[in-house]
Amino acid sequence: MTDAFPASERRSRRSGGGAEARRAARSGGQQTQLTYVKRNIPLYEVLSEEGLELIERNCETVLAEIGIDFRDDAEALDMWRKTGADVKGNRVRFPKGLVRSLIKTAPSEFTQHARNPERSVRIGGKNTVFAPVYGPPFVRNNDEGRRYATIEDFRNFVKLAYLAPSIHHSGGTVCEPVDVPVHKRHLDMVYSHIRYSDKPFMGSVTAPERAEDSVNMAKVVFGDDFVDKNCVMVNLINANSPLVFDSTMVGALKVYARNNQATVISPFILSGAMSAVTAVGTLTQILAEASVGMAFAQLCRPGAPVIFGTFASSISMQSGAPTFGTPEPAHVLFGAAQLARRLNVPFRSGGALCASKLPDAQAAHESANTLWPTLLGGVNFVLHAAGWLEGGLVSSYEKFIIDADQLSMFQRFAEGVDYSENGQALSAIREVGPGSHFLGCAHTQANFETAFWRSIVADNNSFEQWRDDGGRDAAARANAIWKRQLKDYEAPPLDQGIDEALQDYVIRRKSVLPDSIT
Amino acid sequence: MTDAFPASERRSRRSGGGAEARRAARSGGQQTQLTYVKRNIPLYEVLSEEGLELIERNCETVLAEIGIDFRDDAEALDMWRKTGADVKGNRVRFPKGLVRSLIKTAPSEFTQHARNPERSVRIGGKNTVFAPVYGPPFVRNNDEGRRYATIEDFRNFVKLAYLAPSIHHSGGTVCEPVDVPVHKRHLDMVYSHIRYSDKPFMGSVTAPERAEDSVNMAKVVFGDDFVDKNCVMVNLINANSPLVFDSTMVGALKVYARNNQATVISPFILSGAMSAVTAVGTLTQILAEASVGMAFAQLCRPGAPVIFGTFASSISMQSGAPTFGTPEPAHVLFGAAQLARRLNVPFRSGGALCASKLPDAQAAHESANTLWPTLLGGVNFVLHAAGWLEGGLVSSYEKFIIDADQLSMFQRFAEGVDYSENGQALSAIREVGPGSHFLGCAHTQANFETAFWRSIVADNNSFEQWRDDGGRDAAARANAIWKRQLKDYEAPPLDQGIDEALQDYVIRRKSVLPDSIT
Repeated sequence: MTDAFPASERRSRRSGGGAEARRAARSGGQQTQLTYVKRNIPLYEVLSEEGLELIERNCETVLAEIGIDFRDDAEALDMWRKTGADVKGNRVRFPKGLVRSLIKTAPSEFTQHARNPERSVRIGGKNTVFAPVYGPPFVRNNDEGRRYATIEDFRNFVKLAYLAPSIHHSGGTVCEPVDVPVHKRHLDMVYSHIRYSDKPFMGSVTAPERAEDSVNMAKVVFGDDFVDKNCVMVNLINANSPLVFDSTMVGALKVYARNNQATVISPFILSGAMSAVTAVGTLTQILAEASVGMAFAQLCRPGAPVIFGTFASSISMQSGAPTFGTPEPAHVLFGAAQLARRLNVPFRSGGALCASKLPDAQAAHESANTLWPTLLGGVNFVLHAAGWLEGGLVSSYEKFIIDADQLSMFQRFAEGVDYSENGQALSAIREVGPGSHFLGCAHTQANFETAFWRSIVADNNSFEQWRDDGGRDAAARANAIWKRQLKDYEAPPLDQGIDEALQDYVIRRKSVLPDSIT
Repeated sequence: MTDAFPASERRSRRSGGGAEARRAARSGGQQTQLTYVKRNIPLYEVLSEEGLELIERNCETVLAEIGIDFRDDAEALDMWRKTGADVKGNRVRFPKGLVRSLIKTAPSEFTQHARNPERSVRIGGKNTVFAPVYGPPFVRNNDEGRRYATIEDFRNFVKLAYLAPSIHHSGGTVCEPVDVPVHKRHLDMVYSHIRYSDKPFMGSVTAPERAEDSVNMAKVVFGDDFVDKNCVMVNLINANSPLVFDSTMVGALKVYARNNQATVISPFILSGAMSAVTAVGTLTQILAEASVGMAFAQLCRPGAPVIFGTFASSISMQSGAPTFGTPEPAHVLFGAAQLARRLNVPFRSGGALCASKLPDAQAAHESANTLWPTLLGGVNFVLHAAGWLEGGLVSSYEKFIIDADQLSMFQRFAEGVDYSENGQALSAIREVGPGSHFLGCAHTQANFETAFWRSIVADNNSFEQWRDDGGRDAAARANAIWKRQLKDYEAPPLDQGIDEALQDYVIRRKSVLPDSIT
């Protein structure tokens, strides 16, 4: 580990987004970090006003008549009882209007601070933040195939996310480092995000005490008071669909909300198994689960930032296997985004989801079929935006590169259209006239460097050039890219005192945590 | 060749679209032909009202001050002169408002008749018609790699398009049969579309006399009077961008328009070469070229069906190579669709465009990045919807299968959301309740067969199943699919008298056409 931070690196990573960043990226071949996406394009919405009202009405019916279980958490049940909810056993039923009214204290958008202030992200509104894949126990690359993930892989994906200009967030469990004991690995994960990246990150949610560790480590970096007043972590709280919150998730939720840290309340749904097989039925359930979770966060601390989350895909009705990139979950994504906007809260969904085992055409089509709805639907926080393979079981090195390349395409698309005099280009049309070409005209020359988005993965050469270069497919080219990136990686600077304090914390905690459950 | 048409085949191809067709497809494993896409989803539009007005204003400036060349066609220049245009040499300049006013006689939508009336398509309005790739001199498949295309390949792609449920149109030059002399191949191509498919098709445009041959062959099938009163062919007329129409294209245009057949007036643009490097500049030029071509078709025969066409991508500013799947052409596609709607004419654009040499992740991402705008932008006629590889130089057997699979995904997406009581699924949520699953509930059982779209290419199995099945990628699976489809192909019935008359026409014409230019 080195704290060295060459001036060249510092310069290149400091410049802003948009045309300036693109110019820098073009001129040097080095890609310049972009700020989060500020969408300058319209939203796409599939649900009608009447359809939205129908779903909201049905959601109130579900909440009042069926209710939601808060399992094995007497405190949570007591908190609900005090709001006027009807609590019987673990089951909570909600008087009509209660849940929506509780959510009113949640911020409509908020800033998640990074330790490098230039990397802080704004979550909500017209903004979109891309974060890496979350959760896979396996990794795959072209050289080794598929194997269990290690802490070394974890660090590698943090580094690759740090280096990707259109990945704005370091994410959370970019893969499960199964070579570290389960009770201790959250410490290494949080430390790695802080040490090897300066982008914002996520905390552990697998147990309330691991959430406490995450908050404590964040306090080392940002200071106690700053953490209490600002969001420095976004944390993934899954509902146990259908209509259940379990004590692990509620426990972590309470820790984060009470510390004023953001929670993404995410129904995790494969329609046909965890929800009904229809879009409207699934959306009704998603709205019920997400809004109850967000309302509960407001009970823990009014004003605590929350994100309406939705992970929704389907199963094959023939085999029961999860499927991705199909049209029905795209309807659900667009619809859930609309429902979140009507609650005036940020929205999380989407990503580069796929069922494919390889970074092939299946993987790409399935990913694109979620990423397009992600961008056009106005998703604010995008987990799994890069690296997801095989239904989320695998973090793929090659797919990470391919996905990140596509994210930069989407970021450019989101800039929208330039109506300025330069954008109108009448001078170019006049200069060139009928039957000539625009290659050398003054307008083309003036816009040469920033005119078009450039892929780092695509091969646009002639067939003969491509063949003579080895005739490689996209995955093979991506393999060369991630290896070069990891080889050239330099860590962002980190105050030595903070680093030592973090390492002390990790060592201290590891010494009291068991290596295995006995 | 056989005219045999088993009853089983006839039955399966007769059923309608939507849920019924899906049920049929699910139950048998055989896929059922779908009617053209009738979009039940909103449009996505990137340009503002002010932006559209700006482009229309700038277009009038271009038409009045710069003008458009009609090269080497005295008749066309004379026709323009008589409308009040300013003609100097080949250059035609248009008084403001003239071109838009001429287009008013064009139909806003029209039916292209197929020889099987169930396969007729409605072009315009809320409808989208998918047609195969057009023009490649090469083919590629996993077994042989890349080689020149033959008439056998041509027939194969016609057969594959006939068999694909979400390809609604047989297209035109699905590949260039280079083993047939250039002066004669149009006859074999038109004959193949009629003989091996019953879907609508395109005529030849490479010379006016080949357009005449196409019309004559259509008259053999449909009758002289029917052809004069109805559209039975859609024909691709490319502008020679920037701002030129050449005599070949104008010659073919005149033949088709005077015979009341549809012309797609398509600027063929790679921004940076054939247009300015900006979206608004490119759209201004596209509007100028497309609207002048459509107006000229109305001069040939008022009321002749026309389609506002746009083929637009970009070049790499570093190498000059064409690029596909980049964000700037997506802006252009969405914008051109809006401009076409304001002219109240059908719109052609999009397709599964890519620069990749293989049906890999690059090919899929690039294709998806055009197909999503194609569907959401409201394109009415989609050439190149399947099979396009390597910048249009190659018709790929495997990519044809992969693309067609995606088209059926988009067709399902376009059906939109079901708000019925069954769609709301409250009964399912009640039946299942918190913490259970929906797999066996009554609602899931009732919707089992039609609930979710099914890919025929994707592998959703577990890693272990997939590995034990050979660990194949999407292209390898597609290879097996097209081989099986061609093996099982059975030709649709064709009246023997018509077939003989067509064959007579082809033989007669071939006997008088030269084998090569001497």
